[in-house]
Amino acid sequence: MGQYAAPLRDMQFVLHELLNVEAELKRMPKHAELDADTINQVLEEAGKFCSEVVFPLNQVGDREGCTYEGDGVVKTPAGFREAYRQYVEAGWPALGCDPEFGGQGLPAFVNNALYEMLNSANQAWTMYPGLSHGAYECLHAHGTPEQKSVYLPKLVEGVWTGTMCLTEPHCGTDLGILRTKAEPNGDGSYALTGTKIFISSGEHDMAENIVHLVLARLPGAPMGTKGISLFIVPKFVPDANGAVGARNGVKCGSIEHKMGIHGNATCVMNLDGAKGWLVGEANKGLNAMFVMMNAARLGVGMQGLGLTEVAYQNSLVYAKERLQMRALTGPKAPEKPADPIIVHPDVRRMLLTQRAYAEAGRAFAYWAALNIDKELSHEDEAARREAADFVALLTPVIKAFLTDNAFEGTNLAMQIYGGHGFISEWGMEQYVRDARINMIYEGTNSIQALDLLGRKILGDMGAKMKRFGKLVAAFIEEEGVKPEMQEFINPLADIGEKVQKLTMEIGMKAMQNPDEVGAAAVPYLRTVGHLVFSYFWARMARVALDRASSGDAFYAAKLATARFYFAKLLPETASSIRAARSGSKSLMEFDEAWF
Amino acid sequence: MGQYAAPLRDMQFVLHELLNVEAELKRMPKHAELDADTINQVLEEAGKFCSEVVFPLNQVGDREGCTYEGDGVVKTPAGFREAYRQYVEAGWPALGCDPEFGGQGLPAFVNNALYEMLNSANQAWTMYPGLSHGAYECLHAHGTPEQKSVYLPKLVEGVWTGTMCLTEPHCGTDLGILRTKAEPNGDGSYALTGTKIFISSGEHDMAENIVHLVLARLPGAPMGTKGISLFIVPKFVPDANGAVGARNGVKCGSIEHKMGIHGNATCVMNLDGAKGWLVGEANKGLNAMFVMMNAARLGVGMQGLGLTEVAYQNSLVYAKERLQMRALTGPKAPEKPADPIIVHPDVRRMLLTQRAYAEAGRAFAYWAALNIDKELSHEDEAARREAADFVALLTPVIKAFLTDNAFEGTNLAMQIYGGHGFISEWGMEQYVRDARINMIYEGTNSIQALDLLGRKILGDMGAKMKRFGKLVAAFIEEEGVKPEMQEFINPLADIGEKVQKLTMEIGMKAMQNPDEVGAAAVPYLRTVGHLVFSYFWARMARVALDRASSGDAFYAAKLATARFYFAKLLPETASSIRAARSGSKSLMEFDEAWF
Repeated sequence: MGQYAAPLRDMQFVLHELLNVEAELKRMPKHAELDADTINQVLEEAGKFCSEVVFPLNQVGDREGCTYEGDGVVKTPAGFREAYRQYVEAGWPALGCDPEFGGQGLPAFVNNALYEMLNSANQAWTMYPGLSHGAYECLHAHGTPEQKSVYLPKLVEGVWTGTMCLTEPHCGTDLGILRTKAEPNGDGSYALTGTKIFISSGEHDMAENIVHLVLARLPGAPMGTKGISLFIVPKFVPDANGAVGARNGVKCGSIEHKMGIHGNATCVMNLDGAKGWLVGEANKGLNAMFVMMNAARLGVGMQGLGLTEVAYQNSLVYAKERLQMRALTGPKAPEKPADPIIVHPDVRRMLLTQRAYAEAGRAFAYWAALNIDKELSHEDEAARREAADFVALLTPVIKAFLTDNAFEGTNLAMQIYGGHGFISEWGMEQYVRDARINMIYEGTNSIQALDLLGRKILGDMGAKMKRFGKLVAAFIEEEGVKPEMQEFINPLADIGEKVQKLTMEIGMKAMQNPDEVGAAAVPYLRTVGHLVFSYFWARMARVALDRASSGDAFYAAKLATARFYFAKLLPETASSIRAARSGSKSLMEFDEAWF
Repeated sequence: MGQYAAPLRDMQFVLHELLNVEAELKRMPKHAELDADTINQVLEEAGKFCSEVVFPLNQVGDREGCTYEGDGVVKTPAGFREAYRQYVEAGWPALGCDPEFGGQGLPAFVNNALYEMLNSANQAWTMYPGLSHGAYECLHAHGTPEQKSVYLPKLVEGVWTGTMCLTEPHCGTDLGILRTKAEPNGDGSYALTGTKIFISSGEHDMAENIVHLVLARLPGAPMGTKGISLFIVPKFVPDANGAVGARNGVKCGSIEHKMGIHGNATCVMNLDGAKGWLVGEANKGLNAMFVMMNAARLGVGMQGLGLTEVAYQNSLVYAKERLQMRALTGPKAPEKPADPIIVHPDVRRMLLTQRAYAEAGRAFAYWAALNIDKELSHEDEAARREAADFVALLTPVIKAFLTDNAFEGTNLAMQIYGGHGFISEWGMEQYVRDARINMIYEGTNSIQALDLLGRKILGDMGAKMKRFGKLVAAFIEEEGVKPEMQEFINPLADIGEKVQKLTMEIGMKAMQNPDEVGAAAVPYLRTVGHLVFSYFWARMARVALDRASSGDAFYAAKLATARFYFAKLLPETASSIRAARSGSKSLMEFDEAWF
């Protein structure tokens, strides 16, 4: 049931017409030779793989789920293993990886586009390779030369997969209180003991080895987050050539029954004197892990985008086919017993909301990924620094805004199906269930909002935010004088000013009372998300206006979606700004005893 | 896992302190003897039954679901049958029913309060007796004396249950195109043939007979909704004394696998020349069914309220127990490794949102039920008419606003649990899945919004709305001069004026273009919902202020929740009003070919 076709036309629009990546790559020595045609070919091939191999396993994965077979063994749903074999064989894990370790060295934005499609096709399946890529990035940044030479080629090839082991039964958000211990063995390795929970892809039957990156405490380590170290704990201990050896003392004790992503094994991992090796410096494990965490947060944003897109595609087909009632303005398909439901204004609201979220989310996320490439590879240091600021500032927005939108979008898609949306067979309710986790893991969306407002904005007195503001202001300055752009520039300028004022106001209040940050953070993030979306919708409208005379309906649709966005979605900020301004008083004056 | 205790204190507050039902009942001859103590005793007993018998089956019902055993036989989850036996034995089905047929004749609001508690305890289970009650109401209003004497005593006793059979594979919202046929048998009965889907409680093992109320077409009936008739189609054909006889040709063909309410059997019902008897007049079946549908829509609102309450209770316990991070203003529980998460402003926002929705929803729904009693039983005709208008006007608001809020509320409750919220064992994700159907069935929430704006408001040129406006205005007039009420009256008056203007504006636009109704309806309903909630929060604040000197923390909490509502939730109308005003253009100018 259902369908998925990679939105190649829109992806290419974003990369080439909006972001002009080919020109940008010319300023990055290691990508200077890469051209648009090659990128397009990769995306096309990836799209085919996603539609033909990964997507058909989405519903069966949900229905079957993973099975704990006892003694640490987990079986993935029918077909998952074989699809992963094909994925490895085709070389997809290597796409964005360093050629020194067998990677293809393509830019981050190409890898991001691949992940959008994989997540549209099957989020639960995609989490197996997805977490491996995070482990790759963490070891690539912080591993010793020996660790890199043993582990990276295997992760790049995809024959080994990775995990991140942070959460324990008593702590998720608050890693400072974790209890897993690491005691030196005297031979440079450590013996790790403790229990980790909620470990995605923690155990499965798809790879010959699993590389766990585990947070633990060394003996005598300081309390809190400054006493946490990071360790590699492989399922099978490899030798220097990467041949797997003895089974290590890290074992899956059980898997969780959960609301969605049934095809991915969410594991309790028991470490019983498991052998591990320190990654990076002692007691600085959280810094090292943050490389993986930031990658994971962008990855979660791509999960949101992927689900938004696929749910939209399916609800659109249904809205065109399902006949029910007549249009309020009179029959539109008089030859049929009723009109297709796409004639109804509210059905169009539900469709266009999804579409506007998907398209702006794509522009935003690909732009952010392009900035990762700039940060890593741009020839100019100032450009690298600017890009790094954008990525740091907006990572929590990508994570939270895109996943909130995805939950709304998948719910609207399901609603368009009416009663059929609630029935498993149609596949729509699975998207809602899968989308729900993205608002929780890798830092709940509340935590993202605190990160944005507390750390990223107030933490540097608004410096990063000002940088982004300059980018927006430059666009407004250039386009604001053109009559055809008024309808887009005016609301963009308006929300820009409002965000500026709001930030100042909260900043002042926060100096008196830190609870003001916690009270404002969630609606503040929604407001900033809309500033970003307004900026990209105005930019996309500019491109569409330039090409409108081509007669290509693509541009007419793009313009109309931009108009829909400004008319119907941006107004959310009227209430999010009020909520952000309304302060902590009504929250905190409620005595705990009154609850 | 989890817990539920009936919120008796708050229920009594609404009934006695806010609505003063004892005085109201004095004006209803058939209820004039009923006093507050009796009502409280009934609620207390009902609360006990819900917590002790029905609630413990909630999670097992979800996990096991119903089983289709072949040949039309459906098995309900372990314990469901026995709990229903106890329910019947205790006389609960008879609570709100006519004494002429064995009922206890208690007012509708008592029955509503019972249903709030049942739904908190177990929505899937509650749908078995819940639909029976709708069938009872429909037959009570439209059945012949013979039909009443055979069917009503059994439905009142609860030994038979009922269903409503409307939807077919090709039509749900658009009943005008339904195809099930009813041909006269010549003996006063009809032979019904067709397929009905999504029939809740359509088949099960809890009762000795099931009474289906089926919409079908007579031979030569006009096309559309004016050619639909209503029939009783019993599973077993009873004799005049209610003894069950031959198995009728109405059979469950399969049950659906679905997102939630797993414990309730959602059946495909095949009618193969099934014997049926006309209820009410030929071709006026939809009118008769609307008695049941309106009852069902209020019932769905109570499902929303019930889930909001129980999810709140559980997330509150977790927020007090779960230790994670320190308060932004410094440690609150320095003796513990971290503070309970209830110290964090955003956790409080999530808790208080649920609480404010639950308490205002309760006030609104009980008030609406009291108006049903007035409509049926008030000694004064003008009072009866006014009450009928309120019920007609606000039924779609209760259905849609309370169920939208419940979906938001259960999602917030789940979010408070972090990763644990996504795990089935904790029970929170079930509330989200169960809550989701309430936005779809008995008319999707979009349809409710069209019913409110198109039929109930514009359809009578705003007459019913003006009546409700008068009620609000009278309260504002009385309280607006009192300084202590300013903080509640000002925003209430403001939203009242805004709704009035908005209604006028849409009404004018709709005369030019009917699509303006469809474009505005959903955000319009949200806005009206907040007007209603503002009215009840202001009234509840009044009561709480009057009793504040008692020192009872209940009133302090009530006042603080009112303040939270006006500061944090009412601001949603800043965007819902903008969305409702933004018109149909951006929706309808999007060419269908561009999608």
